[in-house]
Amino acid sequence: MTSIDLNADLGEGFGRWQLTDDERLLSVVTSANVACGFHAGDAVTMRRVCEQAAERGVRIGAQVSYRDLAGFGRRAMDVPPAELAAEVAYQIGALEVFARAAGTRVSYVKPHGALYNRVVHDEEQAGAVVDGVLLADATLPVLGLPGSRLLELAAKAGLPAVAEAFADRAYTEQGTLVPRGQDGAVVTDPEAVVERSVGLARAGVVASRSGARVEVRARSLCLHGDTPGAVELARRVRARLEESGVRVEAFV
Amino acid sequence: MTSIDLNADLGEGFGRWQLTDDERLLSVVTSANVACGFHAGDAVTMRRVCEQAAERGVRIGAQVSYRDLAGFGRRAMDVPPAELAAEVAYQIGALEVFARAAGTRVSYVKPHGALYNRVVHDEEQAGAVVDGVLLADATLPVLGLPGSRLLELAAKAGLPAVAEAFADRAYTEQGTLVPRGQDGAVVTDPEAVVERSVGLARAGVVASRSGARVEVRARSLCLHGDTPGAVELARRVRARLEESGVRVEAFV
Amino acid sequence: MTSIDLNADLGEGFGRWQLTDDERLLSVVTSANVACGFHAGDAVTMRRVCEQAAERGVRIGAQVSYRDLAGFGRRAMDVPPAELAAEVAYQIGALEVFARAAGTRVSYVKPHGALYNRVVHDEEQAGAVVDGVLLADATLPVLGLPGSRLLELAAKAGLPAVAEAFADRAYTEQGTLVPRGQDGAVVTDPEAVVERSVGLARAGVVASRSGARVEVRARSLCLHGDTPGAVELARRVRARLEESGVRVEAFV
Amino acid sequence: MTSIDLNADLGEGFGRWQLTDDERLLSVVTSANVACGFHAGDAVTMRRVCEQAAERGVRIGAQVSYRDLAGFGRRAMDVPPAELAAEVAYQIGALEVFARAAGTRVSYVKPHGALYNRVVHDEEQAGAVVDGVLLADATLPVLGLPGSRLLELAAKAGLPAVAEAFADRAYTEQGTLVPRGQDGAVVTDPEAVVERSVGLARAGVVASRSGARVEVRARSLCLHGDTPGAVELARRVRARLEESGVRVEAFV
Repeated sequence: MTSIDLNADLGEGFGRWQLTDDERLLSVVTSANVACGFHAGDAVTMRRVCEQAAERGVRIGAQVSYRDLAGFGRRAMDVPPAELAAEVAYQIGALEVFARAAGTRVSYVKPHGALYNRVVHDEEQAGAVVDGVLLADATLPVLGLPGSRLLELAAKAGLPAVAEAFADRAYTEQGTLVPRGQDGAVVTDPEAVVERSVGLARAGVVASRSGARVEVRARSLCLHGDTPGAVELARRVRARLEESGVRVEAFV
Repeated sequence: MTSIDLNADLGEGFGRWQLTDDERLLSVVTSANVACGFHAGDAVTMRRVCEQAAERGVRIGAQVSYRDLAGFGRRAMDVPPAELAAEVAYQIGALEVFARAAGTRVSYVKPHGALYNRVVHDEEQAGAVVDGVLLADATLPVLGLPGSRLLELAAKAGLPAVAEAFADRAYTEQGTLVPRGQDGAVVTDPEAVVERSVGLARAGVVASRSGARVEVRARSLCLHGDTPGAVELARRVRARLEESGVRVEAFV
Repeated sequence: MTSIDLNADLGEGFGRWQLTDDERLLSVVTSANVACGFHAGDAVTMRRVCEQAAERGVRIGAQVSYRDLAGFGRRAMDVPPAELAAEVAYQIGALEVFARAAGTRVSYVKPHGALYNRVVHDEEQAGAVVDGVLLADATLPVLGLPGSRLLELAAKAGLPAVAEAFADRAYTEQGTLVPRGQDGAVVTDPEAVVERSVGLARAGVVASRSGARVEVRARSLCLHGDTPGAVELARRVRARLEESGVRVEAFV
Repeated sequence: MTSIDLNADLGEGFGRWQLTDDERLLSVVTSANVACGFHAGDAVTMRRVCEQAAERGVRIGAQVSYRDLAGFGRRAMDVPPAELAAEVAYQIGALEVFARAAGTRVSYVKPHGALYNRVVHDEEQAGAVVDGVLLADATLPVLGLPGSRLLELAAKAGLPAVAEAFADRAYTEQGTLVPRGQDGAVVTDPEAVVERSVGLARAGVVASRSGARVEVRARSLCLHGDTPGAVELARRVRARLEESGVRVEAFV
């Protein structure tokens, strides 16, 4: 029987501001990428999300980011590697305190936003993220794009490298994501997203822009929770996966 | 044989800005109060100070603060207790990652600046700091002023409560500090500071403003490192303590 | 014919996070208290709100705050007066650039959150806010609570002091606000809020908690826009005021 | 008679941290690039530097930066142009309040650090900086590298574009700066710096790395003030320029 993990970004408010519908998302996903204070995520929110995740048996991941509250971590930054590595470790450590207090642990690390995109190709920053994870815990899985420099370097360093796919993003014939901004980069039809999820989970394939069958091997599917209707769609994805005989479970 | 701990604030730079002479201070003190990013202390500095402290066998303490880089944590803030507790835990967790990476652990917690002063009398905030420590690690010692609400509540919660004294601050006849801003609040004569250190360490007494002999029981002396000549004075204090037969060693 | 100003807080998002429904609020109020970056308000939002306000002829006020994004400016802080004064001026200047670019000017200053509450009684901080306004522009009106130290010191310094009232807050027999947290501090019945608005605007009176008729002379009514239904209620208040023969217009 | 402006970065502390020796630098330079709070520069410092500059007749320039206190504005960031433009205007406005309070005005704008380097070649960001200046004041001169996209676009937009040179940096045969990190990028011999200053000011020429005579037309020389001995060197440069018959005066 095939199994798949469902991950989503949570705890992305800051103080007075809320963004993600954490409680409802936690009833759908098996892995929660928790913001650690650099692009979003205050200490009270981090604590609450860890408690709620632990209650539901949802895994807690450190969603590490550039230090950029004003830009929500979406602006690429030329952070020197030693600085980036230390900042990654700092964020993991801060989250770990709340995961432990909730009776569990930080189970994996996933870069956020501009950092996520940058470490697909940027050797130096990918290496810095891996160094930061190693500083914090040399056994922590790293979640990212298949074929990314990040996963390559993580694997080389002995860290479990976990690939994820996006059911709501278009893929090229080479199995890479069509960049946002290009026509059709985002799949907006809910039924299409649901079907693509099943295809990715069961067969590791998805239709490319041109309709070709593309192989995308992923142990986790990334769902989104910050747009209207997103949580509802996530529920549908999960329900259909289970109906299709896919076991929805965390990768760790 | 009597023993005393020497503690000082370290790692109080931020990015481009430096303040404390960390390397030289680490050759004098037995406990380093390391800034954790809220009033000072970036991740690179935290990492470096932890490594240097670990090499020298100096204990690492989390110097937790209000979130106030612009005010260096010196402005009292009415932070709601749940928020303060979570922020204290966040800081301890962030530092712990670097302490562990250096082969050691965070060994104690000491509030900084305005928070330090506030928890002397403020029941609610003192309780929040204790809650924050408990969240992070229910065995961590708390360092503070003897008779403070902080130490009372820490002890009540089962945390080791460690009292500290200041050889360069004037004391009232009741054994409390003369508030800064009052005449003679700070002892500036180096030889006086050295002698007071020895008196505090050996006999637990110090001369009050009026010359009365006041009892101040403390397991640690707080030294300062952010003024010219401060490190030199700290060295003299340590040397004289050792010449006087006091063993200078960490309290944990 | 009586006239009244309607003011509300706007532009209280930050980067990715939104809070206030700026566009709809601007169709109701005559004065917009624009966040200036210290408790909320990024530069893009400030620019946009100033443009929208200018188009509609809504006056732009600088909603100045403690430097506290994490606490949304709601945590009282012991900021030294020289620092507070300079920070108030800084915020006014930053907003002025966008007001001018939109073809208008900053027309008044109103403190936000914890600073608003503090300068009701705190002589030192009230004086610092006045000093900050004087630094920026010695002719700028200051908006605040009648009887507050802020308005007294503003008037003494030659600044126009403008009093405001709250139709959705309970008043004591002495004409002061019932502190939040006490029973019945907030008036939640929409029709009651509408009627109190008319009474305040037309006769300068409102019913106290005990039902007594209390005099509250105010040139402006503060409306809220950050809760569900708030903008709708604000519309009703404005409509009823106009039906009652009150001219709704800015105080400057 | 030839004239030259001398500019330097000032006010680059933040709260408790100091960096630049503002008072002594102000006795040497004719233009002060004042940090505006994004990479350094708190409101109290901005106010004080503006007062001191105004007293000495030193021109005040807005040293605008990416929002990056942790990185001192030295990390390139992919800030979307609308955001960058608004942030540039915000900084200029904030500084303007203190310049006016001191009886003068912001006289020019100079980007700092990574933004300075980026707008040499990056069309989009250079345009955003120009847009920000136009938002604030469509007559403000822009100070930058000769041949940079920034100065080109500023001139095209009708802003005075002022070129600066660096006496302590090596030049290529093409008249561009040898990138930091390459051998010999920085001229460390004080006498060489002094002589190069005179050559740049009097004849608009400097010796390239290979010894060739390169033309570098600049109306301002940038001096540094954040290293030991830097202020002393700046004094020598100014003295030698004056002895050589060069009039040291602001460009506006």
